[in-house]
Amino acid sequence: MKQSLTPAEAQGIIQDETPVLGPERVALSDALGRVLAESVAATRDLPPADNSAMDGYALRSSDVAGASAEQPTRLRVAFAVPAGSTPTQEVEAGTAARILTGAPIPAGADSVIRQEDTQLEGDDVLVKVASPPRDNVRDVGEDVRSGEVVLPAGRRVGPAEVGMLASLGRTVVTVHQRPRVAILSSGDELVEPDGDVAGGRIVSSNSYSIAAQCAEIGAEPVYIGIANDTREDIDRHFRAALRADVIVSSAGVSVGDRDYVRDVIEKLGCSLIFWGVKMKPGYPLAFGRFSGEAGPLVFGLPGNPVSAMMTFEQFVRPALRKMMGFPKWYRPVVRARLGETLTKKSGRLHFVRVTLERRGDEITAISTGNQSSGVLRSMTRAQGLLIFPADASEMSEGSEADVQVIDEAFFSSEKPAF
Amino acid sequence: MKQSLTPAEAQGIIQDETPVLGPERVALSDALGRVLAESVAATRDLPPADNSAMDGYALRSSDVAGASAEQPTRLRVAFAVPAGSTPTQEVEAGTAARILTGAPIPAGADSVIRQEDTQLEGDDVLVKVASPPRDNVRDVGEDVRSGEVVLPAGRRVGPAEVGMLASLGRTVVTVHQRPRVAILSSGDELVEPDGDVAGGRIVSSNSYSIAAQCAEIGAEPVYIGIANDTREDIDRHFRAALRADVIVSSAGVSVGDRDYVRDVIEKLGCSLIFWGVKMKPGYPLAFGRFSGEAGPLVFGLPGNPVSAMMTFEQFVRPALRKMMGFPKWYRPVVRARLGETLTKKSGRLHFVRVTLERRGDEITAISTGNQSSGVLRSMTRAQGLLIFPADASEMSEGSEADVQVIDEAFFSSEKPAF
Repeated sequence: MKQSLTPAEAQGIIQDETPVLGPERVALSDALGRVLAESVAATRDLPPADNSAMDGYALRSSDVAGASAEQPTRLRVAFAVPAGSTPTQEVEAGTAARILTGAPIPAGADSVIRQEDTQLEGDDVLVKVASPPRDNVRDVGEDVRSGEVVLPAGRRVGPAEVGMLASLGRTVVTVHQRPRVAILSSGDELVEPDGDVAGGRIVSSNSYSIAAQCAEIGAEPVYIGIANDTREDIDRHFRAALRADVIVSSAGVSVGDRDYVRDVIEKLGCSLIFWGVKMKPGYPLAFGRFSGEAGPLVFGLPGNPVSAMMTFEQFVRPALRKMMGFPKWYRPVVRARLGETLTKKSGRLHFVRVTLERRGDEITAISTGNQSSGVLRSMTRAQGLLIFPADASEMSEGSEADVQVIDEAFFSSEKPAF
Repeated sequence: MKQSLTPAEAQGIIQDETPVLGPERVALSDALGRVLAESVAATRDLPPADNSAMDGYALRSSDVAGASAEQPTRLRVAFAVPAGSTPTQEVEAGTAARILTGAPIPAGADSVIRQEDTQLEGDDVLVKVASPPRDNVRDVGEDVRSGEVVLPAGRRVGPAEVGMLASLGRTVVTVHQRPRVAILSSGDELVEPDGDVAGGRIVSSNSYSIAAQCAEIGAEPVYIGIANDTREDIDRHFRAALRADVIVSSAGVSVGDRDYVRDVIEKLGCSLIFWGVKMKPGYPLAFGRFSGEAGPLVFGLPGNPVSAMMTFEQFVRPALRKMMGFPKWYRPVVRARLGETLTKKSGRLHFVRVTLERRGDEITAISTGNQSSGVLRSMTRAQGLLIFPADASEMSEGSEADVQVIDEAFFSSEKPAF
């Protein structure tokens, strides 16, 4: 087992061990937010035929070449083409066909005049403007040609993709599986949120924040529960988690008297790959993998609430995004100017929780205050995580730094752009 | 009814008519992504008592002031404080208490020495470094003081907020209601995705893309179905939609022969507020409201797939976000340089579907190609919507424009920042 890695070394190892999950077929209505594991080719032309872009009259453009408001051209309305029907009649010279938006253009006609540019007189229509060939006609296959690949594998299914798949009649679609993430914690001091906190007990809040971190990116949390500090109970909880794709435990992987977790999971067939990452918060991170091709990855997160969220954020989140087939796994990174001077001991990379403020073209980062790994409030306030490099001991006010943006609303606008 | 508004005028009217929805109480596990409709005050201190940040020994700092690796200080280990217990004994001078991370600091002790800085010898511990007062001690209430407001009303519930609420024992929380959005379409030419498209019929894909646009922001789509082009069927479908907070219909609000929708919904008690917005795609947008305080808002979207998505994007999406209590309703807007010259007729604002490419500090926008409102593929490719102002007729290559970013992955990184 490796020890005391840099964050970049840890990230590299985790990426190497993390598989992209295989395909599953899901109903179109469940596909939103998933990543396509197939390239979708069109099995039909869209639109399926030349059709009208307007409600109006299909006609021969040569018939109305000279039409104007002063000297309208009179055409006989020979028949009507409702939407959703196949026209069987032909538009002959001197005639027009009433047509509705989306209806197929009948043979003979080569353009459509908008209703607003006409006037009906008995069985005739007066056309008040010229209508060049193909005017208000949507071409067959203008959007999609049968056989074309319209959505490549690896594409996230958003609303437009849902609309496209529906248009092509695809009610079932092949996407990457979502990882099931078994979540557990250990510690005699831990209780559930509705539990009794008398006598210094505390809520096992990590499991809830971790489940939310999973759910937020579309992974499937499976909450196993709190193991007490006995080998037997830890063993029982891990066995319940073995069918997951990823196991995330918090607490229990340090060097304390009662930290049996490492022992227990090694006996269950887990190889620990590393322990300890030179970062703060979050040093005591363990990573391993159960044996066998489908053996779950295991992340042993630290017990402090901020450390648990931070190590999930930096390492588990990208791994889950990779598993789900996303092409980009990491948070947005912006350059920000420090609104204050920061200091630390050199040696570990610090992730400083900051708020972000736009000042003109610049972004200014201000620490959320107490950076103790016990202060969960620093995470509720944080919009970004400022990278304070391992070998630095001071970053002075006004200098620039990279900031991972964890508050997606940071980019949202208070106004539309019009 | 107003006609032919600018997009800004339409936005203003919609905002004025759109209510923020009232509160509901939901389980913590359902609160992720919702917006708090209450200010959450702490009912307990976090942490609940002074406690140890490390596994080690609680002691009197004055006892080990002179300790060093060469001359360790010897203390008798008088008792142990497990996590999750209340210590009843006191640490006296010359003694220490074995303590685990998270366990309360026993009376008498004022600091904790890490296990790594000690050596156990029988019943004694050799302390190899000095430990200043409060060292490795987390203060009671360091994170949260009982009575403090820790999460303000209006805050989105993200993973850190879930963790905080769990820590405070809040298993039920008050959030803004989510709008139920009834979705329907009308047209004899429309079929469901598994329907028969022979004879020029097309899939009613709008309902599916609109449902996905709703779901993506946390609103609750209720798909009513396809009405055929009779007053009776349109009436029946709208009646089924009346209990929703918002009704979104597509097609059927133009000036064509069969566009009964306006008539029908006015008879049902809907006041149409405006029709027609000077934009492209998407001119034929209707907006209204049913009578009564809880009468649903009605958006009549155009039938073309791109126009339907675009008018939802520009007007329905912000309204739904307002209803859910979000403070910011609009997409991110970036400045981008045009990678090509764009032209149009002046008069309407165009939303040009573009791909975005970072080139150094700059973002370059390139049209997705055919901008016809029938080309849904332009929406599947688009990362942004470039604002081509109403009064402009040319925007030249190299000039700058505002772009609404609709692809959230655009901001994501391919690398972590470390």
